[in-house]
Amino acid sequence: MLLLRRCHRLNPIGPLSIDRNQVAPVVASCAVRLCSSSNDQRFHQYGFSASWRHVLAGLLAGTGAVLAYGLHRHKAIEKSSPLPIISQEEVTRHRSLKDGVWVTYQGGVYDITEFVSIHPGGEKIMMAAGGAIEPFWSLYAVHNQEHVLEILSEYKIGELKAEDLKKQSTFKSSDPYSSDPERHPALRTNSLKPFNAEPPPEILADSYITPTAFFFKRNHLPVPQVDPDLYRLHVEGLPRGVLTLSLEELKTRFPKHTITATLQCAGNRRSEMNKTRQVKGLNWGFGAIGNATWSGAKLRDVLLAAGYGPDVAQWARHVQFEGLDKEITGSAYGASIPINKAVSEEGDVLLAYEMNGKDIPADHGFPIRVVVPGVVGTRNVKWLGKIVVSAQESNSHWQQKDYKGFAPGIDWDTVDYKSAPAIQELPVQSAITTPAEGSVIDRSEEMLTVKGYAWSGGGREVIRVDVSVDGGKTWKEAKLKSSDKEEDQTSPPLGRAWAWKLWEITVPLPPEAQELELICKAVDNSYNTQPDTFGPIWNVRGLLSNAWHRVKVKISEDDDEE
Amino acid sequence: MLLLRRCHRLNPIGPLSIDRNQVAPVVASCAVRLCSSSNDQRFHQYGFSASWRHVLAGLLAGTGAVLAYGLHRHKAIEKSSPLPIISQEEVTRHRSLKDGVWVTYQGGVYDITEFVSIHPGGEKIMMAAGGAIEPFWSLYAVHNQEHVLEILSEYKIGELKAEDLKKQSTFKSSDPYSSDPERHPALRTNSLKPFNAEPPPEILADSYITPTAFFFKRNHLPVPQVDPDLYRLHVEGLPRGVLTLSLEELKTRFPKHTITATLQCAGNRRSEMNKTRQVKGLNWGFGAIGNATWSGAKLRDVLLAAGYGPDVAQWARHVQFEGLDKEITGSAYGASIPINKAVSEEGDVLLAYEMNGKDIPADHGFPIRVVVPGVVGTRNVKWLGKIVVSAQESNSHWQQKDYKGFAPGIDWDTVDYKSAPAIQELPVQSAITTPAEGSVIDRSEEMLTVKGYAWSGGGREVIRVDVSVDGGKTWKEAKLKSSDKEEDQTSPPLGRAWAWKLWEITVPLPPEAQELELICKAVDNSYNTQPDTFGPIWNVRGLLSNAWHRVKVKISEDDDEE
Repeated sequence: MLLLRRCHRLNPIGPLSIDRNQVAPVVASCAVRLCSSSNDQRFHQYGFSASWRHVLAGLLAGTGAVLAYGLHRHKAIEKSSPLPIISQEEVTRHRSLKDGVWVTYQGGVYDITEFVSIHPGGEKIMMAAGGAIEPFWSLYAVHNQEHVLEILSEYKIGELKAEDLKKQSTFKSSDPYSSDPERHPALRTNSLKPFNAEPPPEILADSYITPTAFFFKRNHLPVPQVDPDLYRLHVEGLPRGVLTLSLEELKTRFPKHTITATLQCAGNRRSEMNKTRQVKGLNWGFGAIGNATWSGAKLRDVLLAAGYGPDVAQWARHVQFEGLDKEITGSAYGASIPINKAVSEEGDVLLAYEMNGKDIPADHGFPIRVVVPGVVGTRNVKWLGKIVVSAQESNSHWQQKDYKGFAPGIDWDTVDYKSAPAIQELPVQSAITTPAEGSVIDRSEEMLTVKGYAWSGGGREVIRVDVSVDGGKTWKEAKLKSSDKEEDQTSPPLGRAWAWKLWEITVPLPPEAQELELICKAVDNSYNTQPDTFGPIWNVRGLLSNAWHRVKVKISEDDDEE
Repeated sequence: MLLLRRCHRLNPIGPLSIDRNQVAPVVASCAVRLCSSSNDQRFHQYGFSASWRHVLAGLLAGTGAVLAYGLHRHKAIEKSSPLPIISQEEVTRHRSLKDGVWVTYQGGVYDITEFVSIHPGGEKIMMAAGGAIEPFWSLYAVHNQEHVLEILSEYKIGELKAEDLKKQSTFKSSDPYSSDPERHPALRTNSLKPFNAEPPPEILADSYITPTAFFFKRNHLPVPQVDPDLYRLHVEGLPRGVLTLSLEELKTRFPKHTITATLQCAGNRRSEMNKTRQVKGLNWGFGAIGNATWSGAKLRDVLLAAGYGPDVAQWARHVQFEGLDKEITGSAYGASIPINKAVSEEGDVLLAYEMNGKDIPADHGFPIRVVVPGVVGTRNVKWLGKIVVSAQESNSHWQQKDYKGFAPGIDWDTVDYKSAPAIQELPVQSAITTPAEGSVIDRSEEMLTVKGYAWSGGGREVIRVDVSVDGGKTWKEAKLKSSDKEEDQTSPPLGRAWAWKLWEITVPLPPEAQELELICKAVDNSYNTQPDTFGPIWNVRGLLSNAWHRVKVKISEDDDEE
């Protein structure tokens, strides 16, 4: 019905290689469906994408850094005289802006004090102060680029004492990402280390439940290796002291609950916001969202077992989570959610050990992931190691200095992270997954089918998706789907609509048009809707990118063209 | 600081007459503030408005009817031959579309069958079938216009039998609105019968608590006269049978709770949506919103006392409310809310007997009004007479066939009221209250202060208001206020932000500009924001009108002009 000819403009390299042995059955069936619903050109397109995506991802991940570093290169001072020998002891004394910030790299000593304030990664650079920078660069692989070395060289102030260098070399600079799991080759990688990738968006509306292999991966750190027999979850901050649970205990001491919930990265659709003005962050398309079934113990039940009660409710305001994924310094990935979401009977927060009916795989948090339905992905902490009931929010970088929204006028010079609340519930969202941008539709088809997804945070049900094929002049209501089965379209309980709706509409091709601007916008049951444009919601981190999704397609009048 | 010269273009008739004896102290102080913060022209403007507003409101209320009736006049057939005598018995047999729809008016008999489908008031006209239309017209006073009589005359088919007419005249056609309370003359009336009026919006941001007299009035029917000693509230639908409570019992048997909550009419800002395309409904400005303190018993406590428990929770889904304000047929105003909002400890639904520290006045529901914070005004039922716990929503016109939102492509020919959920939580909203549209600002002032309100439904706190003075190109963050006292700016508990934020920003006048387009937009803590424009949220009833608020002002270069 719909010919996708965009791929004519691409240079096909080879067909998609799917190792079916590595793919769970549900994924394989989806892949088959993908094949059967696509023509050969589309298939080649994925093959192509699989081949150049690493290169592209590397370029994209580096772009922000290149811009930021490049702008400030003039600040470095050229040095030509022979440099002094400096001991590690001396280097170690320079660990603050007051005393200076020194680091070593391959036997050189560098005074990066001036650079700290303009480091695109923010204050994290201070963790390296007084020591070797290599282990950090192996964690944040974006630094492994020639221009970064060039910039560093301009801050060189000396050579490390030979015997201190010798001691350093005993530091094993193995790649902490070497034990990351294998991933499906169809994923579009935005960053390899840590691994961040999304599926080709066209497949999202083909299955109400997103196959696990195609569910977007958003890791902040290397994937930790967890032995399920040795795994222990620690619940802290309650009057009875620490409750420690093995995986087996979590599975057997508490009832197993299953919910279907959509998770979305706060950065989903950042690439569209980037077209307004470039922001810092992974250049996500519109595939950083997925819908899965999750099974596990209710966080509420575990907290009650650990001693949560009315007395605790008097002072407790947040539940903090710590992952087993750790910074080089040993500090864990962390986030928190409000206590009322955590303990509410209807909050449905799970300590999930299954995703789509199987053990949660390594990339999604094996063996335990917190699933906080209706809440931004980043608070759905993976590889959960610790739960802390507290009067305070998590003190982590990601809670305090990352996932927050700001006004369009705020930039990196004026941003005050204390002025905005940490993102929890996400706003209403939708996107067109078919047809793809730039598709060519044959006039002889007469009708055009537009498909996509729609979701809202906080358990608010999407009640309507409006679609325009004339750039927003007129709108028609799409048909919503709450399941792949026609007969199983039940509404969720009020306030607990955790899963997305897929939607579809078939409209006649406008007789005169040669190009169509397709738009979708969703309305949730609080009647919130999406803003029209990106400019006025632009923010320095490129988060919460939920303006109307626009897709341009061409209509071809030539029936003979292949 | 800011000269309001728009009034130069108006013809002042006389100063505003405020009867201070009728105004509570808080109102008086606000009125005084209004005087002191305004110049004489502004004062005259209100006086002017007070004088012509009845005329204007009448015209506006009639506009829709005139349009609708006018369009269909050609459908009526001219008749000139002498008309037959018809008995009341015969008239009474014509009460359906199948048998024909006949009504009588001043001794004439009219067959309005053809007219039913095009009646702007919808199916309500069927209530008059087979009887006299006078009592309905005294209730829906919009009909008392010459062109309506003209249209009716074209449907005349006979004269009512003399003795039947004599019987009819014993029907007392007194004005059911004659005992409506006195209102403050500064209110801008959108409809007199039933009474619907809003304050001049400029005063809204002058007081965090809206003075009761200036709180918008939205009545659907005449204000009922309630003797507080005879008042009884009936709670039905629970296993223990009906619980009947006197006002005294409500006040003494249950703890008194106080909340500050903003109520907003679903039609607030309809006049702006009307500029896109005319809709049916009162032409509200942006003053159909107000913030008050409400005190009363918690609905939760009353339901528990009446026997609500886990067994009821199995089947109960809604709590229905009936007002003591009644249609001519005796059917009461009604609405319902979801059961989980009603029984939630944190839902804060009140059976309120006080507004701003005094007995709730007649226009706001004396002696008891349901206050459902975070939920559209229409479900906050006034003059509460009955509460019914049910598996079903209220069956009332207002729940089923009125307050719902639809896609912009849906019109009166295609609307299917079953296809959309009844509005409960409202979307994020904001408006500029100062300066007013068309104001002239003196260049010598150098700075411009912009003020307004912002609110979101569902207990979602407004966390930011962005203001643009250049038509949306650039944005600055306004300062938010949660109280009139600088030192008392506490945040509400999460999910229970029932009250609005007032906001203010002072910006330099752009040096070159001769005209400014001011815009505001709010962001709530689920990071939902307002849509940019009205066209894409236009709906046939003109509800949920929350696109950016835009105000154009002029900058005058002439310092000497008074």
